[in-house]
Amino acid sequence: MKLNPRATAALRRKLGAKVVLTDEASCYAASFDSSKISFLPEAVIKPRKEAEVGVVLTLANRHGVPVTVRGRGTTLTGAAAPMAGGWVIDMRSLADIRIETDAGLAEVQAGAVVGDIQRAAEAQGWFYPPDPSSKEYCTIGGNIACNAGGMHGGKYGVTRDFVVALRGFLPTGEAVTWGTATKKFAAGFNLRDLWIGSEGMLGVVTGAVLKLIPQPAERWTLLTSFKDEEQALTAALALFRARVQPAICEFLDADSVRCAESATKQAVFAGQAGRPVILLELAGGKSEVRELKRTVLAWAAEQATAHRAAKTRAEAEQLWAVRRKCSGAMFELGDAKLNEDVVLPMRSYLAFIRFLAALKRESGLPIPTFGHVADGNLHVNIMYHRAIPAEERAAEKAVQRLMRTVVELGGAISGEHGIGLAKTPFLRIQHNAAEVRAMQAVKTALDPQGILNPGKMFDVVRIWKFAREQVKLPWDHK
Amino acid sequence: MKLNPRATAALRRKLGAKVVLTDEASCYAASFDSSKISFLPEAVIKPRKEAEVGVVLTLANRHGVPVTVRGRGTTLTGAAAPMAGGWVIDMRSLADIRIETDAGLAEVQAGAVVGDIQRAAEAQGWFYPPDPSSKEYCTIGGNIACNAGGMHGGKYGVTRDFVVALRGFLPTGEAVTWGTATKKFAAGFNLRDLWIGSEGMLGVVTGAVLKLIPQPAERWTLLTSFKDEEQALTAALALFRARVQPAICEFLDADSVRCAESATKQAVFAGQAGRPVILLELAGGKSEVRELKRTVLAWAAEQATAHRAAKTRAEAEQLWAVRRKCSGAMFELGDAKLNEDVVLPMRSYLAFIRFLAALKRESGLPIPTFGHVADGNLHVNIMYHRAIPAEERAAEKAVQRLMRTVVELGGAISGEHGIGLAKTPFLRIQHNAAEVRAMQAVKTALDPQGILNPGKMFDVVRIWKFAREQVKLPWDHK
Repeated sequence: MKLNPRATAALRRKLGAKVVLTDEASCYAASFDSSKISFLPEAVIKPRKEAEVGVVLTLANRHGVPVTVRGRGTTLTGAAAPMAGGWVIDMRSLADIRIETDAGLAEVQAGAVVGDIQRAAEAQGWFYPPDPSSKEYCTIGGNIACNAGGMHGGKYGVTRDFVVALRGFLPTGEAVTWGTATKKFAAGFNLRDLWIGSEGMLGVVTGAVLKLIPQPAERWTLLTSFKDEEQALTAALALFRARVQPAICEFLDADSVRCAESATKQAVFAGQAGRPVILLELAGGKSEVRELKRTVLAWAAEQATAHRAAKTRAEAEQLWAVRRKCSGAMFELGDAKLNEDVVLPMRSYLAFIRFLAALKRESGLPIPTFGHVADGNLHVNIMYHRAIPAEERAAEKAVQRLMRTVVELGGAISGEHGIGLAKTPFLRIQHNAAEVRAMQAVKTALDPQGILNPGKMFDVVRIWKFAREQVKLPWDHK
Repeated sequence: MKLNPRATAALRRKLGAKVVLTDEASCYAASFDSSKISFLPEAVIKPRKEAEVGVVLTLANRHGVPVTVRGRGTTLTGAAAPMAGGWVIDMRSLADIRIETDAGLAEVQAGAVVGDIQRAAEAQGWFYPPDPSSKEYCTIGGNIACNAGGMHGGKYGVTRDFVVALRGFLPTGEAVTWGTATKKFAAGFNLRDLWIGSEGMLGVVTGAVLKLIPQPAERWTLLTSFKDEEQALTAALALFRARVQPAICEFLDADSVRCAESATKQAVFAGQAGRPVILLELAGGKSEVRELKRTVLAWAAEQATAHRAAKTRAEAEQLWAVRRKCSGAMFELGDAKLNEDVVLPMRSYLAFIRFLAALKRESGLPIPTFGHVADGNLHVNIMYHRAIPAEERAAEKAVQRLMRTVVELGGAISGEHGIGLAKTPFLRIQHNAAEVRAMQAVKTALDPQGILNPGKMFDVVRIWKFAREQVKLPWDHK
């Protein structure tokens, strides 16, 4: 790793020692994200105003210093790890939130926490649906960088569907704005959406205008259990065929249910222990939900082994709490997890669930799977023990098979996490050579010096070979 | 214009004389779009299968032949006019439509007509909302190229919001797919959305997967009239503030109303002659619409000079027919029209309507204005007589002032038409130099030979100086 002490000194002179931190603690804290693979930067920049981001980038280009941008670092992919060292811009100091209540828009800075944006919107009767499970920690800038999803994706969409405009800086340090605070915009190429999901490689977002939707007046939660996974997914398909769009529709396979039960020492669904479940929520106007409820209850009576509606908001919250715990609970089954957020088209649900059963059998590994069944985004968790080389090899083989099968079934290797470092071995399963070349050409066009988040997406890195920092992050389940 | 007879002959040998047409009538028909500015191509290609598009592009790159892609040519901007000659690919021969009914997706080829897609979806209980007024003629490929909108934009969004995946060819002729038939996708840079709205300059779309939504069970149409334009827009803002999201919310200023009345020889709203109107439609579940209706009727009683709900679908259709006629009706006021589809943020509605009153006064020109008031997309029609130089000068001056004011007010110079040739003089009012350079860098990265739709977007062209073909197109109102 090339060091740039003169460039760092120049930056410090320009922005001051309060903005440009070079102490060991600051650099270490910015050296890893939730993947816990650490690469030490030379400085951490905490900008006081957006324009300082431009100053950093301009100087970085002049001196050839790598720059990685981070919010809270909740990403699991390594996308926020400063792999080539250099400078890290920590956006959390830019965290304004302003709700434009008549128009139903939120004007936010990149460092604003997603949960805070949701609450600010809710206070004025508006709703910002994207809800990654890290929402109380993660920043909107990070959500934009990886096009974050969450449980609401099936009905409402993902981060991209709620971004109206972005402002920020090109990798070369020039200030740009993509889009206006309006719902329509057809003036020039759409670099707004090119930035969204580009994982901090094509530009730096400093601010965004988000679209809000009216807060649903009514919510209703139902827990259903099924004989087996095939029956659960067949039932889900029947529900969608009846044109029911639940706001949330979460599937937990039997392994996930058992993990959650073992970790929480309570049954996910009393009397239905060890059965796969679907937990769903309807949301909308009072009469709309009342109408849909009837359809859903009839569906549950026909398809499920049992069903239970939450009678109160508190009871519903208990049901959701179990769902949220299931990811962390999996560490009962191994100390290492390949957490893949694949997406399947509905027509492939059954073929995939059969493949998954075979993969569990043939790999000999526990692979608890849960996820957002209204949009096909399933979290497949390949669990193994780091100290057992045979398990590690089996896990590596299983993840390769998984990714190939997902693409063969018409799906995507990532639905909401992105590529970062973790999914670089699989990018070329999803994309042909021409597609990858086109992406790289765009990268070179916008970042000719290659300073922004280098080493990600295109270079193949097997992150399971790297040592992990032994730290506990606030959003870690265990 | 450089001619390429040898390249054309080579292409003909490769794809056959039935696919590669060089007769005068075919070339003339492909020489202009709805802007009616004609540039003769050397050949028109009507591909029998998608792969032939790749063959055309590969050969075009080898010989440096410009290629322009067209659907039906309904665009008003000149985006489909083959400005540099060369070859035109007419996509209408690729027009398959297949509804994946369980998943709520439509798999379509680029040449499919938007109205046909809507009907195919509706037949299975699904709804494809984007509805440009040319929907019975225009193709989905063209809608994707300009990110078409329509009256449903405010509630449902625009074309971009319904495109799940695209397939087609890079300008260099390589086959690519962006996205899968799933609602989530976070694997690599998002070139899907970069293609959408890129006006045929960054790639050729041959097929698309579109998202559908459940067909609303109930619709309800209300016509309201107002004292003046300020009062109409103030009322609209009050409605949105009450969290009512009409499926459609169309505003017609008094001039537009008078045009429609003069052209149709009937009152837009009996007893309210010459008053600005808002025509709105609620859509949704039966009980949802019933609930909203109450709110809207109370709003109308308070804000409007009069209101009238359509009692039947046929009566509603009559109300919408008047709205659809108002664009054509404007030719009563002049034989030339600068039709600008600007977008204003809600916070600027009143400032804009005051500016517009001043612009009408000071230019001395009729400027009837109507549009989609739920998303701020207003069609400002500057009418003049071609034969009167003073009027032409006044129109040119007015359009410049209009565009500057729109951007100063935080809006966009185009909401759904795009830039093409028509808006090239204004692109740099919207975008700063760095933004335009970034767009051009992306263009060069993906189309190094510059063969795809050259001469558009970035080179300033004053299309009002060009002669127009004297042809009547099927979608012309007059």
